[in-house]
Amino acid sequence: MKIIEQLKFDSDGLIPAIAQDEESGDVLMMAWMNRESVEATLKSNRATYWSRSRKKLWTKGEESGNIQEVRSIHMDCDADVLLLKVHQVGGAACHTGHQTCFYREIAEGGERIKESGEILFDPKKVYRK
Amino acid sequence: MKIIEQLKFDSDGLIPAIAQDEESGDVLMMAWMNRESVEATLKSNRATYWSRSRKKLWTKGEESGNIQEVRSIHMDCDADVLLLKVHQVGGAACHTGHQTCFYREIAEGGERIKESGEILFDPKKVYRK
Repeated sequence: MKIIEQLKFDSDGLIPAIAQDEESGDVLMMAWMNRESVEATLKSNRATYWSRSRKKLWTKGEESGNIQEVRSIHMDCDADVLLLKVHQVGGAACHTGHQTCFYREIAEGGERIKESGEILFDPKKVYRK
Repeated sequence: MKIIEQLKFDSDGLIPAIAQDEESGDVLMMAWMNRESVEATLKSNRATYWSRSRKKLWTKGEESGNIQEVRSIHMDCDADVLLLKVHQVGGAACHTGHQTCFYREIAEGGERIKESGEILFDPKKVYRK
């Protein structure tokens, strides 16, 4: 895993990681990784982030079952952002039940929110609390 | 621009902004925006970021000519990440001349870098220094 040495983690030891649906090309979400979560992702091929709120490793889908099977991992020119191309199990990445976390468009020059996309699962049934 | 009030900027006043090529679906880059750059982007429909190194507003392409015409702006479920769908003028977003900044794949479980994509312009000719 020597390439990990080239990555530039920020002062909190984190790097942003964008997840993109490999099939549709849709950007699903952005979350954060620390070194340990990059290593876990490389090892397991399941997207594993660092939860800043819960301060612990978080394998995406560990509760909902909607895991992200990692097809490839890319680093940007500055080595301070990661892009994961994934197969999104269950078809929905967002905890709201939407396919993508970016289901809200800032429309009309910032005056209005336009929602799009259907709700693919009922969060109340998927998350225990 | 009242929706801007809903955005959650971090403790440095910044929010990550992902640029995605609207035509190809490719993720081009991730950069940072402050409130002023979000306002400038909404107003001009040209992606305008905050340069953390130069500490100033940075209209993408101001030097290279490779501006990003913004087709739509999306916010994620937590309102702390933006996604811009753009038309990338010149076809290349990266200062290296690559179409996307994510031209390097972390391959073989992190043991090797695999580069992809051709160089679409000569950085030496495009940037003055």
